[in-house]
Amino acid sequence: MIIIKALEQKILEEGKIYPGNVLKVGSFLNHQLDVNFILEMGEEIDRLFKGCGITRILTIETSGIPIAFAAALKMRVPVVFAKKSQSLNLSPNVYTTQVTSYTYKKEYQVIVEKDFLKKDDKVLIIDDFLASGCALEGLMNIVEQAGAETLGIAVAIEKGFQKGGDKLRAKGIRVEALAIIDSMDSDAIVFKEQ
Amino acid sequence: MIIIKALEQKILEEGKIYPGNVLKVGSFLNHQLDVNFILEMGEEIDRLFKGCGITRILTIETSGIPIAFAAALKMRVPVVFAKKSQSLNLSPNVYTTQVTSYTYKKEYQVIVEKDFLKKDDKVLIIDDFLASGCALEGLMNIVEQAGAETLGIAVAIEKGFQKGGDKLRAKGIRVEALAIIDSMDSDAIVFKEQ
Repeated sequence: MIIIKALEQKILEEGKIYPGNVLKVGSFLNHQLDVNFILEMGEEIDRLFKGCGITRILTIETSGIPIAFAAALKMRVPVVFAKKSQSLNLSPNVYTTQVTSYTYKKEYQVIVEKDFLKKDDKVLIIDDFLASGCALEGLMNIVEQAGAETLGIAVAIEKGFQKGGDKLRAKGIRVEALAIIDSMDSDAIVFKEQ
Repeated sequence: MIIIKALEQKILEEGKIYPGNVLKVGSFLNHQLDVNFILEMGEEIDRLFKGCGITRILTIETSGIPIAFAAALKMRVPVVFAKKSQSLNLSPNVYTTQVTSYTYKKEYQVIVEKDFLKKDDKVLIIDDFLASGCALEGLMNIVEQAGAETLGIAVAIEKGFQKGGDKLRAKGIRVEALAIIDSMDSDAIVFKEQ
C-alpha cells in the first residue's frame, strides 16, 4: 500500500497532461527510470500474484520492460518482451498479432518467437499503462496462440476512464493496477480509492 | 570474471548466427530476458566503474534497457533511455541525433528530453551490443549536446571484428565489453582473451 500512495503522489507531482488524455510520466517510468521506485512496484506486483504459479512474464517493448524486469527479479521467472515489427515477411517461427496504439493512433504488428512461450506457461502480462487495453488484448491473443494461459495482468497506471480495464475484468481476467485514474484534466487528477 | 566466462558460454550454447554477421541472443538478452543473469552483468559493470562518480546511465531503446536497469540498481543512479523517433516535428525540449542501424540498414533519429540530462552529469553509456558503434556515438553526441561528460561505455557483447570498439577506444573513450568476439562464422565463435 505504501508504494501505491507513493505512486499516486509521484503522478501528481511529476505527471504532465497533454491533449487527447495523454499522461506523461517520463520522469520516472518510461524515459528516465527511477530504478529503485520501479523495483518497489515490481515487489508489489510479486506480492499481488504470490502463489499463483506464474512461470513467465510477458510485456511489450519499450515501456513495459523496466517494470516487468523488476517484477521478474522478485518472482524469479523469465521475461519475454513482444517486439513491434515493421517487417511484412515474418518468420514462421513467431506468433504475431495486430495492435492499435491509442497514443499514436496507428496500427502495428507485434511478434513473439515461438521458442519463448510454451503451452504449459502460466503467464503474467505486465505493462506500464492500461488505457484502451488494445496492447494487452494483443498480448493475451499471443498467449492463446501458444496454448498457454494468462493468469493475470498487472500495470503501473490504469486510466480507468478509458474503460480498457473494465472491459478486461468483465471477461473474467484478473487485472491489477497500482494506480487507477478515475478522471484527469489540466486542473486535477483524481484516483480511484483502492 | 565468473560472469564473463558464463556469458561466453551462454553465447556459444544459445547464440544463433545469421547472414550479415548478425548474432542473435534472444534467449537471454534481448527478447527473452534471463533476469538473474542480466542482474549479474549489471553487477560486473558496477564493479568495473566503481568510484568513477557516475551520476546517470544513458541507453537506447529497446535492448539496452534491461542491462542498463540492472547496472543502475547496483550503482543507484537513474537510467535514461534515448527513444527512437519517427516524428519530424520534434519538440524544442529534446536533444536529437541521427543513427544508422547496422542490423536493419536504416537511419533513424533518437531523442532525449533535455530535462533528463544535465550539464553536470557524469554519464555511463550502456547497450547490449557494440558493433559499428554508431548508436553509441549517437548517444555520446547527445551527452555532448547536454554539456555533460561521457565517462565510459559498457556493453554486454562487442563484435570486435566490426571495429566500432577500437574506433571509440582510439578516441580515448573507456569501453568495457563483458564478452568480445574476435571472429565468428557458422562453425565457430572465437572470443578475445580478457
